[in-house]
Amino acid sequence: MKPLGVAFLMGLLLVIGTPASGAEPQGGRPRARELGITAGVLPPGPLDAITDVAGVRVGQVTLIEGADIRTGVTAILPHGGNLYQDKVPAGFAVGNGFGKFAGSTQIGELGELETPIVLTNTLSVAEAIAGAVEWTLAQPGNEEVRSVNAVVGETNDGYLNAIRARRVTKEDVLKAIETATGGPVAEGNVGGGTGTQAFGWKGGIGTSSRRLPAAYGGYTVGVLVQTNYGGVLTIAGAPVGKELGRYYLKGAAEEIKPDGSIVVVIATDAPLSDRNLTRLARRAFNGIAVTGSPMTNGSGDYALAFSTAESVRRTVARRSAVAELADLPNDQMSPLFQAVMEATEEAIYNAMLQAVTLKGADGHVLKALPLDRLSEILARHGVGAAARP
Amino acid sequence: MKPLGVAFLMGLLLVIGTPASGAEPQGGRPRARELGITAGVLPPGPLDAITDVAGVRVGQVTLIEGADIRTGVTAILPHGGNLYQDKVPAGFAVGNGFGKFAGSTQIGELGELETPIVLTNTLSVAEAIAGAVEWTLAQPGNEEVRSVNAVVGETNDGYLNAIRARRVTKEDVLKAIETATGGPVAEGNVGGGTGTQAFGWKGGIGTSSRRLPAAYGGYTVGVLVQTNYGGVLTIAGAPVGKELGRYYLKGAAEEIKPDGSIVVVIATDAPLSDRNLTRLARRAFNGIAVTGSPMTNGSGDYALAFSTAESVRRTVARRSAVAELADLPNDQMSPLFQAVMEATEEAIYNAMLQAVTLKGADGHVLKALPLDRLSEILARHGVGAAARP
Amino acid sequence: MKPLGVAFLMGLLLVIGTPASGAEPQGGRPRARELGITAGVLPPGPLDAITDVAGVRVGQVTLIEGADIRTGVTAILPHGGNLYQDKVPAGFAVGNGFGKFAGSTQIGELGELETPIVLTNTLSVAEAIAGAVEWTLAQPGNEEVRSVNAVVGETNDGYLNAIRARRVTKEDVLKAIETATGGPVAEGNVGGGTGTQAFGWKGGIGTSSRRLPAAYGGYTVGVLVQTNYGGVLTIAGAPVGKELGRYYLKGAAEEIKPDGSIVVVIATDAPLSDRNLTRLARRAFNGIAVTGSPMTNGSGDYALAFSTAESVRRTVARRSAVAELADLPNDQMSPLFQAVMEATEEAIYNAMLQAVTLKGADGHVLKALPLDRLSEILARHGVGAAARP
Amino acid sequence: MKPLGVAFLMGLLLVIGTPASGAEPQGGRPRARELGITAGVLPPGPLDAITDVAGVRVGQVTLIEGADIRTGVTAILPHGGNLYQDKVPAGFAVGNGFGKFAGSTQIGELGELETPIVLTNTLSVAEAIAGAVEWTLAQPGNEEVRSVNAVVGETNDGYLNAIRARRVTKEDVLKAIETATGGPVAEGNVGGGTGTQAFGWKGGIGTSSRRLPAAYGGYTVGVLVQTNYGGVLTIAGAPVGKELGRYYLKGAAEEIKPDGSIVVVIATDAPLSDRNLTRLARRAFNGIAVTGSPMTNGSGDYALAFSTAESVRRTVARRSAVAELADLPNDQMSPLFQAVMEATEEAIYNAMLQAVTLKGADGHVLKALPLDRLSEILARHGVGAAARP
Repeated sequence: MKPLGVAFLMGLLLVIGTPASGAEPQGGRPRARELGITAGVLPPGPLDAITDVAGVRVGQVTLIEGADIRTGVTAILPHGGNLYQDKVPAGFAVGNGFGKFAGSTQIGELGELETPIVLTNTLSVAEAIAGAVEWTLAQPGNEEVRSVNAVVGETNDGYLNAIRARRVTKEDVLKAIETATGGPVAEGNVGGGTGTQAFGWKGGIGTSSRRLPAAYGGYTVGVLVQTNYGGVLTIAGAPVGKELGRYYLKGAAEEIKPDGSIVVVIATDAPLSDRNLTRLARRAFNGIAVTGSPMTNGSGDYALAFSTAESVRRTVARRSAVAELADLPNDQMSPLFQAVMEATEEAIYNAMLQAVTLKGADGHVLKALPLDRLSEILARHGVGAAARP
Repeated sequence: MKPLGVAFLMGLLLVIGTPASGAEPQGGRPRARELGITAGVLPPGPLDAITDVAGVRVGQVTLIEGADIRTGVTAILPHGGNLYQDKVPAGFAVGNGFGKFAGSTQIGELGELETPIVLTNTLSVAEAIAGAVEWTLAQPGNEEVRSVNAVVGETNDGYLNAIRARRVTKEDVLKAIETATGGPVAEGNVGGGTGTQAFGWKGGIGTSSRRLPAAYGGYTVGVLVQTNYGGVLTIAGAPVGKELGRYYLKGAAEEIKPDGSIVVVIATDAPLSDRNLTRLARRAFNGIAVTGSPMTNGSGDYALAFSTAESVRRTVARRSAVAELADLPNDQMSPLFQAVMEATEEAIYNAMLQAVTLKGADGHVLKALPLDRLSEILARHGVGAAARP
Repeated sequence: MKPLGVAFLMGLLLVIGTPASGAEPQGGRPRARELGITAGVLPPGPLDAITDVAGVRVGQVTLIEGADIRTGVTAILPHGGNLYQDKVPAGFAVGNGFGKFAGSTQIGELGELETPIVLTNTLSVAEAIAGAVEWTLAQPGNEEVRSVNAVVGETNDGYLNAIRARRVTKEDVLKAIETATGGPVAEGNVGGGTGTQAFGWKGGIGTSSRRLPAAYGGYTVGVLVQTNYGGVLTIAGAPVGKELGRYYLKGAAEEIKPDGSIVVVIATDAPLSDRNLTRLARRAFNGIAVTGSPMTNGSGDYALAFSTAESVRRTVARRSAVAELADLPNDQMSPLFQAVMEATEEAIYNAMLQAVTLKGADGHVLKALPLDRLSEILARHGVGAAARP
Repeated sequence: MKPLGVAFLMGLLLVIGTPASGAEPQGGRPRARELGITAGVLPPGPLDAITDVAGVRVGQVTLIEGADIRTGVTAILPHGGNLYQDKVPAGFAVGNGFGKFAGSTQIGELGELETPIVLTNTLSVAEAIAGAVEWTLAQPGNEEVRSVNAVVGETNDGYLNAIRARRVTKEDVLKAIETATGGPVAEGNVGGGTGTQAFGWKGGIGTSSRRLPAAYGGYTVGVLVQTNYGGVLTIAGAPVGKELGRYYLKGAAEEIKPDGSIVVVIATDAPLSDRNLTRLARRAFNGIAVTGSPMTNGSGDYALAFSTAESVRRTVARRSAVAELADLPNDQMSPLFQAVMEATEEAIYNAMLQAVTLKGADGHVLKALPLDRLSEILARHGVGAAARP
C-alpha cells in the first residue's frame, strides 16, 4: 500500500502526556460488544476472536523501541500440526491491490495454504518471507522440502514507524510463529498493527467471530484484521467520521488522507472447497465497506480464507491419490458470507477501540478514537447500550 | 441469478385494495433526498440521476399485463452517436456471479463497449441480445458490421412475473433503446425493475449521481441500478430490516430468502482508462454492502462502468493508428471511488422508495417499503430530515 | 470474434467445379491419424473423439441453403440425464476474449454446468440461448425452474455465410440438442463449423481424444473444436503455412488475416474439482499455440472443460447438504494437461482435414487444405506415414 | 514451483571429465540462429536479445561455489532513470501459478512497474525483495519513499543447487542491479539460470527479440527467459524429446519429471496500455507451448511485459494530473502477439543451446543438450541450416 502523505494529520501533532515510549496504557478500553455494538445479526463465538475456530493459533511480536520504531509481526497458524505436509484449502481475494501481498498466485492455482500467514509492515515483507521459509524448512518431516510458498500481508505503518529502517528481522517473525497459541488474541497496538492507523485514528489488530445457528450447520467463522485504511468512518451505521469532522473529501486542510490498507484473515471450520473459500474471502470487503471505506487508490486490501475442517485437509495421503473430500454445497454458503461480513466489521471496531494513542517517528501521533465522544454519537444514533433507555 | 424460493414471503400474500392491474399508483412517494437521506458526503448532480452525466440516455419499457406479467426492459446508451463506431472505454466487475450477464469477456479483453446496455429478466437475455444486435446492425454506418458484443444484465422477477412465459420480445428491447432520452429517469416498478424485489420489499429501478468538488476535477458519476437482492436492510446506517423484523437469518418461518441479484451501471465523464473503469465498477459492491447485503450465493451482482469523455472515446480514427488518449492517473481515483459507492447506495434507496406495492403471478404480492414505519425508524436512529430537531 | 476483413482471401475467389450448393463431397478425406499425424505422445480413445468420454453426446444441425447461408449449430451434452438437476462440475478459460461466449460468469462463480453447450455463429448467440433455455425449461422435472444459465460459444462464419441474416433459429438449436448422440462425430463443414475457416483454409468442427496409461489413472479426455482462427499454420511441427506461402505477416497483398476464433470443449471422466477443470481448460490454448497461432486480437478463443465422473456430479442430494466428492489431487493433473494439449491440437487438424472446399456468400470460397501438397510438406519434414521409408 | 523429484534423472549421474567446479567451458556453443533455427516468421533485432529494446538493461550474478552452490541472480531494468519516479506501464500473466512470483497484485491493480525485475531461485525470493527494496530506497530522489513493490520471479534450481542453504544474499541482488547494462546478454548457466534445467537437459537464461515490419509500426519486442520446465521437447517443430527418448509420460524408469517453472520477461518500445501489455504477457505461454510444454502442475509459469515508450511512461507529472498518453489500439496488437510468441520460443532454445553440462549438489549432473544428435534430428525434420541441400 501507499504510505500516508507527508502532510498527513498535521492537526494531530500536539499530544500532551503520552509516556516516553509513546504508548498509552492499553488496559481499560472496551471491545465493541462492551459498548453494545453488535455488527449484524449473528452471535459471536465465546472469545469473539479468530481463535474461536478450533485449532487456529495467533502469535504476535510488538516492536516499540526508542522514539521511532513502532511496528511488529502477527502470525496466524491454521492448525498445530505440520502445515506444509497437511495443507489446508484456502482462497484469496483482492479488494484493491496496491499492496505487496506475497504468495497469492500459488494459492489461486492450487487452492491451498502450506505455511503460517505472516502480517507485518510494507517494507518488511522480505524478512517475513525469510522467517516463514526458514521455519517451514526446519519443521520435523520437512527435511526434503525445497519449495515453500510463504504468505505475507502488510500495511504501511510509516506515519508512526521509521519504516525505512526495516527494523523487523527474520528472528522476530520466527518468534511470532513459535509463540502462537489459541485463546484470547491481543488487539490494538500489537504485532503487525503496532503502528498502524484507521480513518485517521490509531488502528491496529482486531478480531471477531460468528457462529451460525445449528440449522445452518453451526459452523464458526473467525476473522483477524490488520487495519491501516480509511474513508468516512461509520460505526454500526452511525456517521462517526462525519460527526467528528474527520473524514476524507471534506475539503479542508485538516483532511484525512484515506490511503492505507487492510489485510483480513478468515478461518472457518466449515468444510469448504477452495472456490467457496475464495468467495468467502471476497465478503471481507463487504465488511470493510460498511465501516465507511470505498477502498481508496492507495490501499492494499486483501483477504485470505482457509478451512480447518479435517474433512477437507490436504494430507499427504489425499495429495497422492483420488481422495474423498467433504463439500458444503454452494446453496449453503450464504450464512457464511453473512458471518464473514459481520465479523470483519466488528474486528475493525475492536482494532480501533482497543488501540490507544501512540506517538512515534518524527513526533507524529495517532490518537485513539475518543470513547466519550463516540458514546455520545452512538447514543444519538440509537446504537448500542448507550442508546437503550 | 436464482429465483426466490417457492415458499418465499408467504406472510405477504394478503394485500387488500391493490387495483386490478396489481399496480399501486406510483406518484407521491419520495426519493431518498426528500426524506433527508444523504448517502455519504458528496453532493448529487441536478437530477440525482445517471443522466447527470452529459449524453447518457435511458429508455424503459414496462410490461404489466393481466394477472401475471410484471416485467420489462431498461436500456442505457452512453452517447447519442453511433455506439459501435465510436466505442466508449468500459470496465466490468463481478460481485457474485450467479447470473447471466452477457458480453463480459469482450469488455474485459478490449476494454470497451459498443452497444446499448440492456437490463431485463433472467429468462429474457436471449431477446435482449437479439434486440441489441438488431438495433446495432441497423444503425446508419454499420452496414458492414458482422460482429456485435451485446451487453445484457438481468435479475429474476419470477416471484411476481410469469417468467417462464418469456414475455419480453425483441421489439420491446428495440423500443426501450429507441425511446431512450436524457433528463429525469423513471424509478421503481419500471423497465427491467418492474417486477423485482429488494430485501423482501418491492424493488425496481433506481438512480443517483455524485459531483466531485472542483478541486478533485469536478467530474460527475451517475449510477443506475436494477435491484432484486437482499440481506439485512440498512438505510443510511439505520437497521431498518432488523427493526421491521424482516431479514435474512432471523431464523423463523417468515424469513426472507436473500437470493436475488443487482445490476449496477455506472457512467462518468472523467477521462478514465478501462482499467480504472474496472476499478470504479468494483466500488459498486461497496455501495451494495452498506445497504446490508453480503452478496448471497444466489445473487448475480454485476457492475459495468463506462466513460463518456470525448478524450478517451475510441473513435474510428483512434482505433486504426497510435492515438493520444487522456488519462486521469491512479492517484486521482479515490474521490471517484467514493462517488460510485455513495451513488450506488442512494440509487438503491431510490429504487425501493419509488417502488409501489405490486401484486402479480400466483397472487404473490411485494409490498412497498412502508414509509411511516421507515420514517419512525430513521428518526430514532438520527437519520434524515425527520431526525432534526 | 471479429469477422474477416472485406479484402480477405481475394486470391481464392475462383473455384471451378464446386457443386451448386457450394459444398464439395465430404467423403474420402482422411483424419489426421490416417495421414500418420499423431500429435503428442499419448494414445487416442477408440473413436478419437469427444464421445470416447462415456455419456457425452453431440448433435449437429448444418444449414447450407441457397448461395449464401453456410452456418449451423453444434450441441454437446455432458450426460443423458437431466443436466439441470444433476449438474456437472466445469471450468472456463479465456485465451483471447474477442467473442460473445455466454454463461461464463456463473460457471466461474459456481463451478458447474447445467445446460447443453451450444456452438453457433457470432450473430446467432441470442437464438442459441433461447433454444438452450427453452429445452431446459421443458425437461421433465424442471417445471419449477426459473433460472437457466445457457452456455453458448460462437465463431464468425461471415466470410462464407450471410451472417447478418441471422438464419439460425431456436428450432435449429432444439434440433441439435435433441438429436445429440454418442458414437462417431461428424467433422468439417458441419454444425457450428459449417461456414468457418482456419489459417485461410476451410475449417470447421473437429474432435479427438486421449487415454492416459493405467499408471496415471486410465482417464479419458475428449475435445471438440469449432475453428475459425489463424496464424502461421504448423502441422505436427511442419511449417505448412510458410511452405504454402499463406500466412499472417508475410507482408504481401495475398496475406491472410488471422482474426477469427476457436471454441474448445473438453470432456473427461477424471474426478476433478472445478478448479482443476479450469486449469484443464487453460491447456487448450497450448494445443492451439502449437498449430501456429498467437491468439490474435480479433479472436475469441475460449475453452470449457467438464467432468462426467459420477463421483463429482452435483446431484440434487449433493447440492443440499454436506456431500462427499471425489477429488483427483493437484499432483496428478499433469498427464491430463498433456492430454488436453494433444487432443486440442489433433482436433484442429481433423477439422481442417475433414473440411471440404466451400463456396458461399458474395461468391467467396474457402478451399480445403490441399492434401497432396500437405503430404509432400509433411514428408519433407519427417512427419507421419509419408515420412517413413 | 515444485522441485524435481528425488529420483529425477538417475541415469544422468555419470559424467566424466567435467572440471572441479562442475562447469563445462561455456564458449563454442551456438545460439539458435547459428543452427539455422528461426522460430516463426519475423526477423530479430541486431542482438537478438531483450536489450534490442532501447534502454533495457540486464545484470547477472552467477554463484558457482564448491560442490553444491549453483545459483544466481538476473536483474532486468526497463530504463536507466529513476524507475520508481518514472514508472513504466506493465502487465502480468500467470500460465500455471505454482510459484512465488512477488509483486503481481500491485502490477494488476495499477498497471505499472516501479522497480527492477529480479529473477533468482525459489527459496531466495526474500533476499531478492530485500535487495530490490534497498536499492530503490537508496536511489537519489527516493528519500521519502516508504512503499516499494519489488517484483521477483523464481525457478527451482534445487536439483543442482543446495537450495535449502539459501546462498543468495541481498548484496548479490544489489550487484546484479547495479551492474546491469545494455548490449549482449550472457545466456545459459548464468544469473538466476545458473543451476536450472529444461526438459531434463541443462537450461538457464536465454533471450531473443523480434522487430516488426515498418508497415506494422516497426516496434521491437525483446524477451528474456529463465527456464526450468519440461514436457516433450520440440525444437522448431522437430520432435527432439521423442527422438532422444527423454520425455514425460514415456512410461519408463528413466522418465523425466516435467515439473519446473519458467519466468518470461517481455520488453517493447510500442506505446501500449497496461491492458494490452497484459495481453502481450499472455502470449509468452504460446511460445512456451510450442517448445512442447503443457505447463505441468508443479510449474510456476509467469510472464511480465512492460513498455519503454516515453509516450506512455508514468512520470511524476503524468501521475498527478490528467495526462495525454499514447495508445496503440487493440486492432494493431496482433503482430506484437506474434513477436512475443516467436521471441519466447527462440529465447528458450538459446537458453538450452548456450547452457553447458553442469555437476552440482549431491553429485547430480545436468547435461547440455547434445549438439550432434540435435543437428541430426533437425536435419531429418527439415529444420535449419543442416536441412538445406
